[in-house]
Amino acid sequence: MATIFQERIQQKQMTATSTMRALVFRGPNQIGIEHVPIPKAGPGEAVIRVTLTTICGTDLHILRGEYPVKTGLIIGHEPVGIIHELGVGLSGYKVGDRVLVGAITPCGQCNYCLSGDWSQCGGPIGGWKFGNTINGAQAEYLLVPNAQANLAKIPDDLRDEQVILLADIASTGISAAESADLQIGDSVAIFAQGPIGLCATAGVKLKGASLIIAVESDAVRAQMAKRMGADVVLNFKEIDVIAEVKRLTDGKGVDVAIEALGTQGTFENALRALRAGGTLSSLGVYSGKLSVPLEPFAAGLGDHKIITTLCPGGKERMRRLMELVRHGRLDLTLLLTHTFPLDRITEAYKLFGERREGVIKVAIKP
Amino acid sequence: MATIFQERIQQKQMTATSTMRALVFRGPNQIGIEHVPIPKAGPGEAVIRVTLTTICGTDLHILRGEYPVKTGLIIGHEPVGIIHELGVGLSGYKVGDRVLVGAITPCGQCNYCLSGDWSQCGGPIGGWKFGNTINGAQAEYLLVPNAQANLAKIPDDLRDEQVILLADIASTGISAAESADLQIGDSVAIFAQGPIGLCATAGVKLKGASLIIAVESDAVRAQMAKRMGADVVLNFKEIDVIAEVKRLTDGKGVDVAIEALGTQGTFENALRALRAGGTLSSLGVYSGKLSVPLEPFAAGLGDHKIITTLCPGGKERMRRLMELVRHGRLDLTLLLTHTFPLDRITEAYKLFGERREGVIKVAIKP
Amino acid sequence: MATIFQERIQQKQMTATSTMRALVFRGPNQIGIEHVPIPKAGPGEAVIRVTLTTICGTDLHILRGEYPVKTGLIIGHEPVGIIHELGVGLSGYKVGDRVLVGAITPCGQCNYCLSGDWSQCGGPIGGWKFGNTINGAQAEYLLVPNAQANLAKIPDDLRDEQVILLADIASTGISAAESADLQIGDSVAIFAQGPIGLCATAGVKLKGASLIIAVESDAVRAQMAKRMGADVVLNFKEIDVIAEVKRLTDGKGVDVAIEALGTQGTFENALRALRAGGTLSSLGVYSGKLSVPLEPFAAGLGDHKIITTLCPGGKERMRRLMELVRHGRLDLTLLLTHTFPLDRITEAYKLFGERREGVIKVAIKP
Amino acid sequence: MATIFQERIQQKQMTATSTMRALVFRGPNQIGIEHVPIPKAGPGEAVIRVTLTTICGTDLHILRGEYPVKTGLIIGHEPVGIIHELGVGLSGYKVGDRVLVGAITPCGQCNYCLSGDWSQCGGPIGGWKFGNTINGAQAEYLLVPNAQANLAKIPDDLRDEQVILLADIASTGISAAESADLQIGDSVAIFAQGPIGLCATAGVKLKGASLIIAVESDAVRAQMAKRMGADVVLNFKEIDVIAEVKRLTDGKGVDVAIEALGTQGTFENALRALRAGGTLSSLGVYSGKLSVPLEPFAAGLGDHKIITTLCPGGKERMRRLMELVRHGRLDLTLLLTHTFPLDRITEAYKLFGERREGVIKVAIKP
Repeated sequence: MATIFQERIQQKQMTATSTMRALVFRGPNQIGIEHVPIPKAGPGEAVIRVTLTTICGTDLHILRGEYPVKTGLIIGHEPVGIIHELGVGLSGYKVGDRVLVGAITPCGQCNYCLSGDWSQCGGPIGGWKFGNTINGAQAEYLLVPNAQANLAKIPDDLRDEQVILLADIASTGISAAESADLQIGDSVAIFAQGPIGLCATAGVKLKGASLIIAVESDAVRAQMAKRMGADVVLNFKEIDVIAEVKRLTDGKGVDVAIEALGTQGTFENALRALRAGGTLSSLGVYSGKLSVPLEPFAAGLGDHKIITTLCPGGKERMRRLMELVRHGRLDLTLLLTHTFPLDRITEAYKLFGERREGVIKVAIKP
Repeated sequence: MATIFQERIQQKQMTATSTMRALVFRGPNQIGIEHVPIPKAGPGEAVIRVTLTTICGTDLHILRGEYPVKTGLIIGHEPVGIIHELGVGLSGYKVGDRVLVGAITPCGQCNYCLSGDWSQCGGPIGGWKFGNTINGAQAEYLLVPNAQANLAKIPDDLRDEQVILLADIASTGISAAESADLQIGDSVAIFAQGPIGLCATAGVKLKGASLIIAVESDAVRAQMAKRMGADVVLNFKEIDVIAEVKRLTDGKGVDVAIEALGTQGTFENALRALRAGGTLSSLGVYSGKLSVPLEPFAAGLGDHKIITTLCPGGKERMRRLMELVRHGRLDLTLLLTHTFPLDRITEAYKLFGERREGVIKVAIKP
Repeated sequence: MATIFQERIQQKQMTATSTMRALVFRGPNQIGIEHVPIPKAGPGEAVIRVTLTTICGTDLHILRGEYPVKTGLIIGHEPVGIIHELGVGLSGYKVGDRVLVGAITPCGQCNYCLSGDWSQCGGPIGGWKFGNTINGAQAEYLLVPNAQANLAKIPDDLRDEQVILLADIASTGISAAESADLQIGDSVAIFAQGPIGLCATAGVKLKGASLIIAVESDAVRAQMAKRMGADVVLNFKEIDVIAEVKRLTDGKGVDVAIEALGTQGTFENALRALRAGGTLSSLGVYSGKLSVPLEPFAAGLGDHKIITTLCPGGKERMRRLMELVRHGRLDLTLLLTHTFPLDRITEAYKLFGERREGVIKVAIKP
Repeated sequence: MATIFQERIQQKQMTATSTMRALVFRGPNQIGIEHVPIPKAGPGEAVIRVTLTTICGTDLHILRGEYPVKTGLIIGHEPVGIIHELGVGLSGYKVGDRVLVGAITPCGQCNYCLSGDWSQCGGPIGGWKFGNTINGAQAEYLLVPNAQANLAKIPDDLRDEQVILLADIASTGISAAESADLQIGDSVAIFAQGPIGLCATAGVKLKGASLIIAVESDAVRAQMAKRMGADVVLNFKEIDVIAEVKRLTDGKGVDVAIEALGTQGTFENALRALRAGGTLSSLGVYSGKLSVPLEPFAAGLGDHKIITTLCPGGKERMRRLMELVRHGRLDLTLLLTHTFPLDRITEAYKLFGERREGVIKVAIKP
């Protein structure tokens, strides 16, 4: 510990007058790189030097003003980095450790966390802090709250690029199958194959689904869906998806339907594709209105379950996901289609937002 | 077996030319007692002589034409009776046994049943047969399909009146807590205290809830709610129910909210009363439209679960519920507020439909 | 139905005087092919003409007199065949349908089955009937009880050899991960890689394990373990297995340990390999004595779970497993190392019992 | 926070030179009150002034040298008290708050805790710290580690005596039903009715058991068992318990059997009392040898589950248990049969150890 504190002190002196570059939200459709002070670690906190991050679909919502955050906030919530400073009260870490931090950073000690509702830490959506209620990861340095619960050391045999997508989209996508309590042999349909939906496809395969049906109209994503495990990809622009799902399941419908977009249409189709007694696992962020069509819902008598899941976080979740990658069960590197330096992140936002060049996820290197 | 077959043959000869009285649905708002043939038991079937039945809220929907059934159907789905005839292929029963049969009669042998989805036997809502897809219980005799799976012998120490409500409302009501996987110490709010809601209140107490909040404006039902286990009954006509639920739960909301009516208002309030990570257990039959308010749903990010349950059936379910009554854990006799002979069942429908005289459930004696 | 009955009658006439060949247990270490009457289907029953079967390790126990069955019994419990006769009370099947029947044939209608304890149908181990309490599958024809619940139609695109091992070893092996409620990312150790253990290895991979450690000293089986999904195979004759498991799991032990042999040694090692809070999933049939070492059991304070599972059966289980094969998630054909005609089954028993020629499973063609 | 820090500083100054009385373990069969320094709160820690504590059966094991702890340790692990000092990094608490702290004090932030294995915090039995690996509660002051996760504020309407037994025996006893996933209507047998067993009886009633059978030979405890919810109490010295359990359950055995003593005999009987497919929920601390009788274990084929549980802890657990007391679901005050001041605690140990005067639990007031 003595050594750790010394390192911390030296580190602090070196960086005392330093500033860092960070992507700041200035208001709807206004983001830009700014020079801001490097954060300091309080008790139980840590600061990491970010070595890799990415842009999430949620960041686009923030940029467009669809999801409100306060002006001046640094956005982004998917960090890989090196420990730069450790606050008091931490143990088992040292400056220089390479770590992955989940998008969701539970405290582990509130009543929600102690009920196992880590993502709802302290209250609704409370586990999501980075780039939402505190400064985020699209910066050179990042303050990690409740660091003891959230710094996941990266095994030496894994590269940053192999783990970065575990912070959010893999954790979220895979949770669809987990929250649905998908059973070995279940048939599944996943509605939408964006980054989250593609990971949901990988997740249902991981958890033992038999027939995996993906629904997607974009050709690049349809192809990627097959690589992530889909047996069939249905283009909803060309085919009656519900009729086809029913045909593929002997008229019964799927055991599990996953909503991975957040629209009335996908939610409704997910319910229509579902068998009686089945589970609709919902990952999407809905806006506007959401209504439940009563006929496929059997007027409330179909023993249906609708389960929503916010990305699971915490260092144990990250450790488990990294173990999957280490043992060859999961490879998401092919989703990282583009790489940009932090200085050109606004270009990356533009490319990602416009879905140009077959982009799926963009790596950002500070 | 030889004896059983002989008895069956004798019984058949005795009743060969007989008819019985039964309540027949002749079309919307038209029901009446008719004389119809006593049913015969085919392979795997049984005929019981009904000794006690009751009227369900669902029967009112059928009467009013809101839930369509075919003209000529005998309605009712809650029977206690004596075995009158046993078809081939049954074992362990004899003519004269007193039995309870659940409202839901699964076959036990289809793919749904063998997945544990007994209520969805054969497909959506398929477990509900009596008074829906086959003749029902408001008659002197009743044909029981898949009798091996559905005849639950009544212990000698229990009277018909003690078990009749287990067939549907107790099984349904109690399932709200079960489907929600209610944990010991959970806080709960139950929206509406009709017969099903009252049983849901009894069920959450049975399963170990701490704070139990019932929501009901009718004074008689409010009082009954307290007798079934509610700590607090909130009159939604006089008080802001959601604000009060939040106040009673330190601002957090309840762990489990139960919808027991089937309206947009109760569904919406149930969701608003719920904490992040909580479960909405829905028992109601919805009609018209059902929409999900996005703010209390945390736009899909609240780790909420919405679980619907159709009444669990089968003889093992009935046996377990009877064991609760036998050991003093459950007493529903006080819900049986009125008794009518079968001949006067149309009067009983009228009283029950108009909710006169503080009626909760009506016993019908053929 | 009329057609079915006619076919049945014709079929009966054709076969009325026929006998069949069957492997009969005459007493310990005495088995032989005999000519016995072809069975007749009573109500709810069916007779299938067996087209493929196999020999199970349990059959060896029976042969050796270690598991007592009555003299004169036809043994074997893993059948694929063609429907030859249908008893009254069945629907959805016709003579000529190709079907897979599980080793466990639940009735679906007793209190155990209606509690979801299908394998314990009617009481302890009651679901296991074939070659145990009724005649079994190593014969030309087989009477299937509760046929409505147990005849699983084989999709046209699957050959007999692709599904035969689902009847028992795949259903049992895969259940280890299911009963353990294995979570995505769990580390697992499987003790013994006989046919059941190999399927357990395939099962934990199917359900999303990260690190998979198999324990086996036989070189052929060790190699097969890798093909079924093991990352590491530990030879307990050459290495301290527990120390190595701990090393591979950062000193913690595995999340799930599977016992697949039924000995004190493997049970004990499974417990020693387990982390605090972990689950020991036991598939073995124990004889002699079984004791629980207290130190790795944390004297009862380690939040350990010990779960035993008898092979899940029923037509829905078979259907789900066949769907896994259809969609390329599971391929067990490489375990079928040898093929014998029924007439030479005693040779097959000898080869299988002596584990010669790298045998894993033997296909028997009547 | 400023105020909290100021209070803390003042508090520290006031108590800087103080010592306190505490019960110290000096070696097997040697305990005594000593004057030792009052502890100081480091980061994330708190010191409480103990207002009520009790003696646990485990403390007797420690006293007798059967469970080894280091010499000089203050023992006891069941504290109610007033916050005396708060370390840095805590929020939501102030000096003077009245709190209950569980016997198990998880950190909430290690990999075990973040997997939901709070009692195994950091490794086997790691959640149990008080009076085991750090100083305990039989003292005037107590240092609480990871205080943010472990200080549970006591509602004003509850007295210390109403909540003290929640810290350990209620949390442990009730967990038997929870870990068994006891279902509404299950039949249960609880073996031994010491303090833990009595709470297990209360717990199974809370969770909706139908028939509750307690097994106990001591007359005082047998009577108490009835008050806690047992329908029947069987005296194993006078009756064949297994035969009687089978008789009471129609020959089937109970759905859930609870072991609450930690001996071969009770473990074995619990297994013999269990139905196929049932769950043995084990709370006892075993010593010597533990063996599994193979016949009732169905040689490993009975689909049995054996689940062990260490007392659940953390402030949310305590909050939930207090809510049960508040709403009249649980009243354990009648188990507190005797009260002693801290100075006479060695007398209390003697009385408790010798089970004199119908003692069940002893309240200790520092």
